[in-house]
Amino acid sequence: MKFSAVKGMRDVYPEDARLRNYILDAWRRVSLRNGFEEYDAPILEYLELFTVKSGPEIAEQLFGLTDRGGRNLAIRPEITPSLARMVAAKINALPRPIKWFSLPRLCRAERPQRGRLREFFQWNVDVIGVESVQADAECIFTLVDFLREVGLSPAEIMVRVGSRPIVLSLLRREGVCEEAMDKALLALDKRQKIPAEAFEAMLREIGVSAGAIAGLCEFLDTPPERIVQRIADSGLPGAEKEIADLQELESALAAMGVKEYIAFDLHIVRGLAYYTGVVYEAIAAGERAVAGGGRYDRLLELVGGPECPATGFGMGDVVLGLLLAEKGKLPPELTAGSLEFYVIDAEEGTFRQVLDITARLRAAGRSADYGFKRQGMGKQLKEADRRGSKFAVLVRREGLSVKTLATGEQTETTAETFLEKIR
Amino acid sequence: MKFSAVKGMRDVYPEDARLRNYILDAWRRVSLRNGFEEYDAPILEYLELFTVKSGPEIAEQLFGLTDRGGRNLAIRPEITPSLARMVAAKINALPRPIKWFSLPRLCRAERPQRGRLREFFQWNVDVIGVESVQADAECIFTLVDFLREVGLSPAEIMVRVGSRPIVLSLLRREGVCEEAMDKALLALDKRQKIPAEAFEAMLREIGVSAGAIAGLCEFLDTPPERIVQRIADSGLPGAEKEIADLQELESALAAMGVKEYIAFDLHIVRGLAYYTGVVYEAIAAGERAVAGGGRYDRLLELVGGPECPATGFGMGDVVLGLLLAEKGKLPPELTAGSLEFYVIDAEEGTFRQVLDITARLRAAGRSADYGFKRQGMGKQLKEADRRGSKFAVLVRREGLSVKTLATGEQTETTAETFLEKIR
Repeated sequence: MKFSAVKGMRDVYPEDARLRNYILDAWRRVSLRNGFEEYDAPILEYLELFTVKSGPEIAEQLFGLTDRGGRNLAIRPEITPSLARMVAAKINALPRPIKWFSLPRLCRAERPQRGRLREFFQWNVDVIGVESVQADAECIFTLVDFLREVGLSPAEIMVRVGSRPIVLSLLRREGVCEEAMDKALLALDKRQKIPAEAFEAMLREIGVSAGAIAGLCEFLDTPPERIVQRIADSGLPGAEKEIADLQELESALAAMGVKEYIAFDLHIVRGLAYYTGVVYEAIAAGERAVAGGGRYDRLLELVGGPECPATGFGMGDVVLGLLLAEKGKLPPELTAGSLEFYVIDAEEGTFRQVLDITARLRAAGRSADYGFKRQGMGKQLKEADRRGSKFAVLVRREGLSVKTLATGEQTETTAETFLEKIR
Repeated sequence: MKFSAVKGMRDVYPEDARLRNYILDAWRRVSLRNGFEEYDAPILEYLELFTVKSGPEIAEQLFGLTDRGGRNLAIRPEITPSLARMVAAKINALPRPIKWFSLPRLCRAERPQRGRLREFFQWNVDVIGVESVQADAECIFTLVDFLREVGLSPAEIMVRVGSRPIVLSLLRREGVCEEAMDKALLALDKRQKIPAEAFEAMLREIGVSAGAIAGLCEFLDTPPERIVQRIADSGLPGAEKEIADLQELESALAAMGVKEYIAFDLHIVRGLAYYTGVVYEAIAAGERAVAGGGRYDRLLELVGGPECPATGFGMGDVVLGLLLAEKGKLPPELTAGSLEFYVIDAEEGTFRQVLDITARLRAAGRSADYGFKRQGMGKQLKEADRRGSKFAVLVRREGLSVKTLATGEQTETTAETFLEKIR
């Protein structure tokens, strides 16, 4: 073949499109029933919108281009900067709270690997303008509502919830200095995927004593159901509000009936420096993060807007699709098309009636199709079957039969009666 | 503000997103009920995929970029080349007929103007692998099925159908030589938008005699209901098959009950050289084309695939959205959000019950929301109203009331009974 898809990007054939639509539809349905409104932004933004948030290094992971006016643009690798820009632009006109979601197409010029492609869709759910931790609870509830909707149980996936300010306070108390903080956070993030010695070595390297490491590990390993209370009891300096928030979050999530999906876990710190409060990840068996988010109260200021609290999460379609397939959670309809009626000329000279009946079924909102080629009834019935059609409509010069393909059951009627019933 | 949307591209705030989703949902619904299956392709393709179809000049109208491997890529300005590439790659594995649709996001680096933006969505409907003109009829029917679905009448929009091979044969007979053919087609395309003298001047310039011009005009102005018969009677040389096709198309569209939306019209030639047969445009009052398409039997070969017949059309969301708004065809729900239940703590100390009831409503698949701030009942009711909620659920320490906001009607019940009913 002369042409192929661009490296790291997928062609989406009908079977793939049905899977993608299943995911996107569920994202949209769950967002709407949780009271979020959809928004979108251009797929191209000025490059600086992304570098101002993530630093100039991000440019290397982007598909960048220069427009005819010489301005640097990039295909969006995430939608949160566009969200911040859009909200900041209308901050005084938008009624609060701003509960918005989006299903953007995103591109990243990173090395393709399993679960990571250069083009994907991401569910974004955000609450803007609300300081209260109830907004974080709302996002986490919405995330769990989705996990339930697609049939994932707490045995298959959990939302692990941490708090960056609390972790920072804890690390400071254990003697980590500000310059070494990023390395300490990285060590925490990796702890559950690396051997204990490797974790300890990472902390020793930045000057944390063996005793402090042991104390930290013991604290981190507090069981999830007790850790919030233990944090509260430990009286971490400068984190009083955050501790109260974590307690309120735990209680709100319990009131909303999603406790079984939640594990408080201070290893969750999220890489991005811009998170300012509660952070969380939905993690499936094998430490695969399917979603991640948290509070980011500084982002609007970064893009030139006013001070404004914000919190939210993102979930990608690729990892999720792999997980759902692996766990057998995909509905069987996704593998075949679905059609209600396949209309067949069962006698010669009835093709114009086939066209007429098909057109009327469609106009009545029902899905209906017919064959372009005039073939024998057997071949047409086979095609009806291949198309996953529920009924075959056999059109004769006088009257017609409606055949239920699953059972073979057949009822005789006339075109008028049949179409009357449909309407 | 520090950042704005890229020039010529739109931010899509919730109200805009509702309009876009209304259009995209209707496109998808109509496609599926007409038996088409959805596909998609990457938003980036190798630049050559577009230049091979449209010539090197197209590059100037594209957002192009170079990847780290030095290959020229472009954001897709249309999806048909990707479709041709995808079908060619699996030509032997795909069951025929291939009836596919797509709702791609597209970008073009052209000058923004009313109804034309640099980023937009386009409905694409194609039948591949079918030589019979019935496939063209199927696409045209689907187009009309959509026009009806959104409430556009034949008085507001018509599908004008022409035939490139017939027009070419007609122009040849009137003395237009092959080198001048593109100019003659351009004149034809413009005729209904320019003064008669300008049209005549365009043809005289390429050597068509005054008599031939008069004859051509007289022929072109044959009323739509008679022109197919007149074409048949005129016995244009070398267009016998195309004339029979046009007659069959007219008869198929009549059988499918969409005659009232169709006007045969040889002025419709479509700019793109790649059309090889029937061509058509959906044109609203004021000569605004909302959709266009036709048969393009050579495209698969152009991208390195086998010989394979193909036909289809595209419709953009921007012009369509303007037309629907102007004609008052947009459903009123699009201007406000829609929510089923807004849950209110009508007495102090009931907020945890509010959370519980909201969570249960959502888990039952119903849309429900509540306020993050604890406010008086009046303010919460006002917010319920602003959110377009159907019901307010007033939660008290003992029992609750369900208030229908449109009528003010209120029924007393208990949380258990209410939730039982919902399930």
